[in-house]
Amino acid sequence: MTTDDRWDGLLLDVGLATLVDNGVPYGAIADGAIGWRDGVITFAGPRSELAGDPHALAHRVESLPGTWVTPGLIDCHTHLVFGGDRAQEFEQRLEGASYEEIARAGGGIVSSVRATRAASEDDLLRQSLPRAKALLADGVTTLEIKSGYGLEPDAERRMLRVARRIGVELGIDVRTSFLGMHALPPEYAGRRDEYVALVCDTMLPSLAGEELVDAVDAFCEGIGFTHDETERLFRKASELGLPVKLHAEQLSDLGGAALVARYSGLSADHLEWTSEEGVRAMAEAGTVAVLLPGAYYALRDTRPPPIEAFRRHGVAMAVATDLNPGTSPLLSLRLAMGMACTLFRLTPEEALRGATVHAAHALGLDDRGILAPGRRADLAIWNIRHLPELCYWIGGDLLREVRVAGERPHET
Amino acid sequence: MTTDDRWDGLLLDVGLATLVDNGVPYGAIADGAIGWRDGVITFAGPRSELAGDPHALAHRVESLPGTWVTPGLIDCHTHLVFGGDRAQEFEQRLEGASYEEIARAGGGIVSSVRATRAASEDDLLRQSLPRAKALLADGVTTLEIKSGYGLEPDAERRMLRVARRIGVELGIDVRTSFLGMHALPPEYAGRRDEYVALVCDTMLPSLAGEELVDAVDAFCEGIGFTHDETERLFRKASELGLPVKLHAEQLSDLGGAALVARYSGLSADHLEWTSEEGVRAMAEAGTVAVLLPGAYYALRDTRPPPIEAFRRHGVAMAVATDLNPGTSPLLSLRLAMGMACTLFRLTPEEALRGATVHAAHALGLDDRGILAPGRRADLAIWNIRHLPELCYWIGGDLLREVRVAGERPHET
Ligand SMILES: [Zn+2]
Ligand SMILES: [Zn+2]
Repeated sequence: MTTDDRWDGLLLDVGLATLVDNGVPYGAIADGAIGWRDGVITFAGPRSELAGDPHALAHRVESLPGTWVTPGLIDCHTHLVFGGDRAQEFEQRLEGASYEEIARAGGGIVSSVRATRAASEDDLLRQSLPRAKALLADGVTTLEIKSGYGLEPDAERRMLRVARRIGVELGIDVRTSFLGMHALPPEYAGRRDEYVALVCDTMLPSLAGEELVDAVDAFCEGIGFTHDETERLFRKASELGLPVKLHAEQLSDLGGAALVARYSGLSADHLEWTSEEGVRAMAEAGTVAVLLPGAYYALRDTRPPPIEAFRRHGVAMAVATDLNPGTSPLLSLRLAMGMACTLFRLTPEEALRGATVHAAHALGLDDRGILAPGRRADLAIWNIRHLPELCYWIGGDLLREVRVAGERPHET
Repeated sequence: MTTDDRWDGLLLDVGLATLVDNGVPYGAIADGAIGWRDGVITFAGPRSELAGDPHALAHRVESLPGTWVTPGLIDCHTHLVFGGDRAQEFEQRLEGASYEEIARAGGGIVSSVRATRAASEDDLLRQSLPRAKALLADGVTTLEIKSGYGLEPDAERRMLRVARRIGVELGIDVRTSFLGMHALPPEYAGRRDEYVALVCDTMLPSLAGEELVDAVDAFCEGIGFTHDETERLFRKASELGLPVKLHAEQLSDLGGAALVARYSGLSADHLEWTSEEGVRAMAEAGTVAVLLPGAYYALRDTRPPPIEAFRRHGVAMAVATDLNPGTSPLLSLRLAMGMACTLFRLTPEEALRGATVHAAHALGLDDRGILAPGRRADLAIWNIRHLPELCYWIGGDLLREVRVAGERPHET
């Protein structure tokens, strides 16, 4: 808090990708300035519109020529809290082992469940924090983290508590999604209904009561949960006043996109098999399409989501890492943006909107994702000459620094 | 230099991926130690084989539990010296522009040639150095850099001089390849023979005389240079005692692999269209197959190189970034290793050998690429639990530090 009228910070001589509709691609302002106070943007516009001495306007003034400022990136779909990793399983597959052989050897999602259940809360935090730091190091300032490797009350609670602690540790904003219906835990084989009842009637209400759940998610798929099981969960979420989202149509079309749209869901995610009707339902409900090219890449999928249909119907497209140990060990949202361009043919501007303003909407947040007065001063400052470089370079370190509500995140 | 008998450095409590044939995958030693003196490895083996007080053995002793040491990575195929970038062209293609429209607007390789010719030597260094740093930051300690965006004597010389200066600036080892036959420069349209004569009879001998050329390369392709033009270059290289390598069979099969093998070439690179005969010729000549999955990925190619045939015939496979502004803006060799696994189905061990010992051979170097007494103490030290993590994680920062001939590279 400042004690006079001046802003807390002001950046000069930067390019701004405001993503505001100003008639220019990216809402770009080439010779821009951006100021903030109490964590909120107070000015974002051409340098020429700032009158007088900048030091009379703000306490801290920095000139950063040769940089572009975008909204801080928002990774709206991750599973980054988990125990262990699956690198050895990755190797076994490449050495020719079949999925069945790996499953028989205790691999697959069950191995992540086992390692997650075995880890204490502190251990899970210690294992997961470096992954969140990797995302932050490439420009992420808001992060969604799902549960779903616990699949029992205590372990799901630990995952969500760790997600919250990551936000506190790093000084960034973490949103949680409860994904108890990620997979049927092995001890419930043959007793699906009992597990679904446990999730809907016990786990969700109690975790929500502890304020650990910002949204409710499920894996609606032949190898996951059925349309009806998912709807049962959504009804419970609605009763509790919690927004829903859904892993839908990654491997087949079970009508998940239309289902989540019917519940006015925040997002449907994956969507490789979504039909035109599904797209239309999403458009009507304002449900965001979250594209996850990391899993598409790692699984060598060949059927991209229906990008043209999303464009035609005006469905907002977000882009996320899906960071998870099995199908997307992807530690950079900027790499996901590049993959969305190369593999799904998004334009770099669509990819950047997908990792900022549309990702914010996929999390139910409208206080961030663009650079405009009144929005949170979540900024990513990049050492680039042109904005498409964010998607063009594969790897490398383009980030100069981030600001989260105007502040540098914690060094840890 | 030390003045007593002790080694300069010794690392304890590390895993070692020696890549030496000790009957274990990766030549791994789980509880290892590695020592060096005067830039050369003096010991690499189990900790238990070190007798007595470590401080009596070495001046500097460090214990690094939780890390694995691999040979420093070797990127044996890059075009990282160039002016400008092609991010806007990348964007135009995604916005629907055809290659022809981009070419008419001055894009394509010609735009990189124009920007490279326009840059002074210092400017070219300033633009290129961050790319070399990005590779170094992900574990690279030896780097090949090609000319080929100058396409005239002075500009080719500048590129090669900048390549040498990058090595000096960063304190890493840079090997140069002369690629005057990368593309026909626009001013020679309709006068191919004159350009080939200029390259073979003027540019190559004079640049070699200035000790700027460690190897000779060409782009043998329908859109590049013919089999006969390439052979003319190779004859000249042989006269000058310079080893050859070749961009071969990326888009079609012109018999380039067999040609470079006939000249006992160090490597044939790309190789998506290489025939069984080409593979056999490479095997007989000991020519390394350099795989470039970054270009395959960025171009959305669907025909991988004949990996099974390389394995069957015992052709060593290297993996490189092909870092270039048009078809592979890839700033991480570790990402290329991961792509080689995911897209070409190499095992993580093959990918690691491909970015170390086989890459060394592709550059004609046999003093590095494995961890064994007598080899250069080029080390990459990784914060990982298992070696396949190097290929499994997509992005992120796994590197703790590198040593180049035992020393930390220059901070710049
Ligand atoms: Zn997911
Ligand atoms: Zn190349």
